[in-house]
Formats: sequence, C-alpha cells, structure tokens
Amino acid sequence: GMDGAPPPASPAGLSAYVAVSQLLGLTLLTTTGAWLGLYRGGVAWHSPLQFNVHPLCMVLGMAFLQGDALLVYRVFRHEAKHSAKVLHALLHGLALVIALVGIVAVFESHRTKGIPDMYSLHSWCGMAAFVLYLLQVRAGEPLGPRGGKGPHTPRNIPAPPQWLLGCGFFLFPGASFSLRGRYKPQHVFFGIALFALSIAACLLGITEMLLFNIRDSYSHFVPEGVLANTLGVLLVAFGLVVGYVLTRDDWKRPPLAEELALSMDFKTLTEGESPGGGS
Amino acid sequence: GMDGAPPPASPAGLSAYVAVSQLLGLTLLTTTGAWLGLYRGGVAWHSPLQFNVHPLCMVLGMAFLQGDALLVYRVFRHEAKHSAKVLHALLHGLALVIALVGIVAVFESHRTKGIPDMYSLHSWCGMAAFVLYLLQVRAGEPLGPRGGKGPHTPRNIPAPPQWLLGCGFFLFPGASFSLRGRYKPQHVFFGIALFALSIAACLLGITEMLLFNIRDSYSHFVPEGVLANTLGVLLVAFGLVVGYVLTRDDWKRPPLAEELALSMDFKTLTEGESPGGGS
Repeated sequence: GMDGAPPPASPAGLSAYVAVSQLLGLTLLTTTGAWLGLYRGGVAWHSPLQFNVHPLCMVLGMAFLQGDALLVYRVFRHEAKHSAKVLHALLHGLALVIALVGIVAVFESHRTKGIPDMYSLHSWCGMAAFVLYLLQVRAGEPLGPRGGKGPHTPRNIPAPPQWLLGCGFFLFPGASFSLRGRYKPQHVFFGIALFALSIAACLLGITEMLLFNIRDSYSHFVPEGVLANTLGVLLVAFGLVVGYVLTRDDWKRPPLAEELALSMDFKTLTEGESPGGGS
Repeated sequence: GMDGAPPPASPAGLSAYVAVSQLLGLTLLTTTGAWLGLYRGGVAWHSPLQFNVHPLCMVLGMAFLQGDALLVYRVFRHEAKHSAKVLHALLHGLALVIALVGIVAVFESHRTKGIPDMYSLHSWCGMAAFVLYLLQVRAGEPLGPRGGKGPHTPRNIPAPPQWLLGCGFFLFPGASFSLRGRYKPQHVFFGIALFALSIAACLLGITEMLLFNIRDSYSHFVPEGVLANTLGVLLVAFGLVVGYVLTRDDWKRPPLAEELALSMDFKTLTEGESPGGGS
C-alpha cells in the first residue's frame, strides 16, 4: 500500500508445500534428463533420437509447467488478480507450446520408423489430455473484466466445448458475466482433473517405453527400470502436492477489496447493456 | 419426520450424475469381463487363468466399489450420518477384501510362473494405492461420536501413518475430537487422491497386459486392443464423474440439526475429560 506497510504474508504451510512442489518438479526434470541421457542416447531433433524429445517435452510441459500455472493463484495470493492471471496464461501458453513440440516429435518419429499413430491407451489418454487442456485454457482466457481480451475477440462469441461427459460435449456459451461466475468452479475442477489425467498419461508413457526397450530385463530390477519407476513416483508426488495446495480451503486466494468493487461495477455495466449491443 | 412430510429431495443434477456414474461403473465391469472372457480365456483360481482374477478384482474393488464408497455421503445426503457412515465403511471393507484377493492372485500366479514381483511402475503405484487406502480406511473408521468403535479399540491410540509427503510419513495422533475435526478435510482430499491413484494404477495394468500379450498386433488396432483401450477410457470417465460429484460445493452433505446438537454435546463431553481418563 501507499503507507509503506509490508504486504500480507502467505500462510507458512503454503510456502513450505510450494517449496516442496518446486523441489519435486526440478527433481523430476533432472530424472527425465538422466534417464534419456544415460540410457536412451540423449535428445536430438533430426536423428533416430527424435523420439526422446517426446518424453522430455511432455514431462516439462504437461506436468511441471501445467502444475506451476495452476499454482500461480495460490503463490501470488495478494498481488492484483490481473497480474496473477497474466502469469497463469503465460505459463499455460508455454506449457501448451512445449507439449505441441513433444507431440510433433513423436508423430515425426513414428513416420520415420513406419509405426502407426494413436493406437495405444497412452496415446488416447495423452491426446485427450492435450486437446481438453487446450480448450480449457482457451475458455479460461477471457474470464473476468480485464482478462486480456484482444480487440480481435468480439464479446458474445460462444466458448469452445469444455469437456467430454460420457459420450457428448457440453456447450457453455461463455459470454455473460453471470454465467462466467457460475462456470468458475467447473473451470477449477477441470483444471485439476486434466492435470491428473496428464500425469496419468505420463505414467502410461513411462510404462510403454520400458516395455518396448527393456521388456526382458525390467523384471530383474535393472537400474534403468528403477530410475524410470522413480520418475513415475516423483510425478505422482508432484501431482499430490500441487493438488493439495490447490484444494485446501484456507489457502484459497482471498479477493481484494478493489476487485470486489471492480467486479460490482462491471456487473452493473454488463447487466445494463442492451442484448443487441455488440462491441 | 414424524409429521409424515416427504424427505427433502436431492438436487436433480446430483441424481443424474450419480446415475451416469453407476452406468459407467457397470459398463466398465462388463467391459473387463468381456476382455477376459473373449480374449484371455476367462477366469479361474487353480489354473493358468489365475492371473486373470487380478484385473477383475482390481477394477471391481479399487475402482468401482472404492468410487461408490466415496459417493455414499452424497447419495444419502439426508439420512442419519451414522447410517451413511456404516455403508461407507462396509463398501470400503468389501473393496479392500476384493482387492486383496486380486493381489493374492497375481502373487500366486507369478510364483507359479517364476516371474519376480513388484518390479514394474504398475506394481509400485498399485501397491502404494492399496496400502495407503488401507491406512486411510483404518484411520477414517473411528471418526465421529458413534463411529463404530469396537470395545477392543481403546481411545487415544495414535492413528496409523496417513500419507507419504515427498520422503516422509506425517503422523496424525487421531485421538482428540478437535484434531479429528481438523483432519476431516485431509481425509476427503486423500480419499479422492487415492481413488485417482487407483484408477491410474488400473490404466498402467491395462497397458502392461496389452504389451505382454499383443505387443506386435496392438499397433494394428486389433479388437482386443481397442476394447482394452475403451476400458481405460471408461475408467477415466468414471473417475471424472465421481470426482465431480464429490467436489461440487453445493452437493456437499448438509449437516442435520440433530447432528450439530450431538457433536456439540460430544465436544463438551470430550473437552471436559481429564487427560488421564482412559476407557
């Protein structure tokens, strides 16, 4: 504030859990690098090592960066919501770009080796996680009064489909402010659910890679198998810690007084608009 | 009530989601049966088919029954909490017994065939899910004033370790009522997290089984592969629907007036006890 008072501190437990999550995150990146470097010949784009770009990018994008993007609102609890939102969007965007590079790597590697695409449970779960994550981020983007809507994005366009329930898509027309308010808890639930599905897809990928590469020695507890299993355990632990931080009630982000006022203003503004009034 | 008024209805959306969850649950059991019956020679205990008892029991126990046990408090929202608690405990108990049979089946099958145990990521995740689930159910059992504590269970014994954070166990001494009140949100979080881990372990098992049995034809989209992948997708869908029902705020179980009074009485009772007063 202008009176020079220090900003309110985060709860001590929250900081400790966030620190543990980042330690786990860095450890799982290191473990992935060690696995690919020590046992799989390393990583390169134009070579038979192109496949190895896939696990590296997916662990970095779909696990570590996606998890950190979800943590933003808890870590920057007392910053202006707009700043947290921009960082949240930047991390999600980076996660999606890196994941896309990883997906291109496996498709190109399959094409080079003549292996069919999208036949395994890993590919089904992983592709579902990526596409739904893309739609989730795209739908979350214009949330709120100052949510970074560009001039090319007209108000009142329907949001893309949100998530697959059983056999069909539910369509949320994400235009009106009141509907967005109702949609927010779903946005949070699907954010965490897709993060969990992404981690499950990583575990499936580890299992596939081990059974294709060291099928016969895996059961003899060879170092590569133990290292890759450890990577799986680290992914589960990272997911648990991030999930705990996100769902603990007393660590939820308190709304700032000015945000409450602003959203009231915005609500009055939008509710006063005529239905035909475009941008 | 005694005035013959009908009990309060559940929200319409809740009933629909629970119905979908049960439909998914029955479909995934049928799909498991079809996979084992049509492509894996069926199920039997004393034979080379003993292994097939494992996937059947784990899908039934660790996915379907564990999920239904978690749903009990949402489905029976207006029954006495004690009745819901008994059903919750019975379903968890049944789930654990069936899962134990499934675990014995795979260990015996490995012994017969000379295959080592516990080397794969599937076995690590699955065993972690089972052991932590056992501890979670054991710790949840004496919760609340009428929580089915037998006379052989003295008050003030410490609860077993709850869950592994990073590298260490946290010990919750689950004796005092106020601590149990504080522990409840964690009980709910770990219940859902262990359910998610159980489903992930099932997906890993499906992938292992396919790569051991149809490794070369899997990539040609043979019917067995597509069926088993579909089972995986059904498991994910079941987990998502159950998770959504459990976490939606306005579907949480409202406390009954008599329970509030009872828990107040109990709190007064326990807080009035002398620290040395054992049972």
